[in-house]
Amino acid sequence: MPLVEIHMVEGRTEKQKKAMLDGVTEAIRDSLGVPLTSIRVWIQEFSSKDFMIAGELYINRKE
Amino acid sequence: MPLVEIHMVEGRTEKQKKAMLDGVTEAIRDSLGVPLTSIRVWIQEFSSKDFMIAGELYINRKE
Amino acid sequence: MPLVEIHMVEGRTEKQKKAMLDGVTEAIRDSLGVPLTSIRVWIQEFSSKDFMIAGELYINRKE
Amino acid sequence: MPLVEIHMVEGRTEKQKKAMLDGVTEAIRDSLGVPLTSIRVWIQEFSSKDFMIAGELYINRKE
Amino acid sequence: MPLVEIHMVEGRTEKQKKAMLDGVTEAIRDSLGVPLTSIRVWIQEFSSKDFMIAGELYINRKE
Amino acid sequence: MPLVEIHMVEGRTEKQKKAMLDGVTEAIRDSLGVPLTSIRVWIQEFSSKDFMIAGELYINRKE
Repeated sequence: MPLVEIHMVEGRTEKQKKAMLDGVTEAIRDSLGVPLTSIRVWIQEFSSKDFMIAGELYINRKE
Repeated sequence: MPLVEIHMVEGRTEKQKKAMLDGVTEAIRDSLGVPLTSIRVWIQEFSSKDFMIAGELYINRKE
Repeated sequence: MPLVEIHMVEGRTEKQKKAMLDGVTEAIRDSLGVPLTSIRVWIQEFSSKDFMIAGELYINRKE
Repeated sequence: MPLVEIHMVEGRTEKQKKAMLDGVTEAIRDSLGVPLTSIRVWIQEFSSKDFMIAGELYINRKE
Repeated sequence: MPLVEIHMVEGRTEKQKKAMLDGVTEAIRDSLGVPLTSIRVWIQEFSSKDFMIAGELYINRKE
Repeated sequence: MPLVEIHMVEGRTEKQKKAMLDGVTEAIRDSLGVPLTSIRVWIQEFSSKDFMIAGELYINRKE
């Protein structure tokens, strides 16, 4: 039954995101013993200019 | 005073989204008896490739 | 398919919250034309000391 | 770097929740190839009376 | 350690958003006395057509 | 108009949380130039057992 919201900087490939959604879904199922049908996982992306870590913009940390 | 966040796959028309925001606002007002001025409702959209239901990508379920 | 998260100060009765969840669910179904089975709505409550509106704590506004 | 918010009905044991947090963290690390240090996962719980699935309160579905 | 999610209508300049992220990060550090390294702040934007205040679309209020 | 959701481990004093809400509200007002009346800030707390940083439970990191 968990509803999982992943906040993340945009830029990952479809393949990476699919693998992440698969892995998170399986981790929920295995740890809680809930049926797959009850699990929802989604990604809310934002720009690397819209994320600040430790007082620094994410876009600048990557350089 | 409720703050309502609607997570949804992108692709609905403006008309549908307006009707949804209207309906949710009215449902909150009528059930709680709060003034319209205190209600906020917003939509956070994501791609159908970024949403997994029951272990399957939403984009594939629609085919 | 929408996933609706309602942020709200605690203190409403079970009956009020049930009416609100019913009303929001119906508003989503009617405006988007999606099946009831695809809709999820939940309430995340917080203390009236943990909410600031217009620069004032909510608990103080109610006095 | 993902920030993962898990919305879930209260009532799981500490052990189950720890296993879930471990599993989700590992799934993120393995799928995206990001360092463990960049990952945050947290649980926001709510009452089974505050969650409606498919037009029915969760607390009633479990009976 | 706080994780701060700012929901906001799109359209602000990069400079304004950077100033906001800076200001919020500093406010958290100063009020709680936590190290900068533990703070995360991000912006989730949405369209002015996807936000309803007091029963009115935000895009219409601005006219 | 921003809606600010602060995810945080429970345990801070009322005074600290009030200072944080004040500071964040002012930072938003000053950086964006929006009126105080349009700003909402709230805290969603969770247990230190429900938060994992870098693969470790927060409750264990503090020891």
